Amino acid sequence: MSSSDVMVHLNQKALLLLQEDADKIEKLIKVQMDNLTTRKCPLYEEVLDTQMYGFSREVDFAIRAGLISESTGKQMIQTLERNLALLYEALGEGRLSP
Amino acid sequence: MSSSDVMVHLNQKALLLLQEDADKIEKLIKVQMDNLTTRKCPLYEEVLDTQMYGFSREVDFAIRAGLISESTGKQMIQTLERNLALLYEALGEGRLSP
Repeated sequence: MSSSDVMVHLNQKALLLLQEDADKIEKLIKVQMDNLTTRKCPLYEEVLDTQMYGFSREVDFAIRAGLISESTGKQMIQTLERNLALLYEALGEGRLSP
Repeated sequence: MSSSDVMVHLNQKALLLLQEDADKIEKLIKVQMDNLTTRKCPLYEEVLDTQMYGFSREVDFAIRAGLISESTGKQMIQTLERNLALLYEALGEGRLSP
């Protein structure tokens, strides 16, 4: 592999790993929502905050290590936040649980 | 740069970034300790837990991205934990504040 091949491989791997983590957080939050009688539970808020913080630390590291661009990183965080907000809305409308 | 040069550069960069973050956490916790009347403050515990969690997410990402070895990552977390425990002890013995 040439040096640029190595970078492309690492960049793609970093994106994939971050996307996997974002998906995991979405699933975790969805399970939490499904199992909570109310969203106003402090535990839920704490889990959400902690997960978002952990994810933002990962993204920030990937940016600083030169694996992803700053705009890609910001976009990933925004997308996750938007998806979680949509889940939250869906719960309010009773569309989440089977 | 050859492809192995690129990897060595990235590995070194990842280690440096993680070490900087570990140092920042140590400084933050030391400042917190210096400014708290007691270590048994829930806020302090929360800051410590959150910072350790964020750091462990970064280290885990660096391992999965192939930037550092698993043993190096574990060692960095253990070293930070040990340093924070030493700070905590020092505070108990009144050796921290000027």
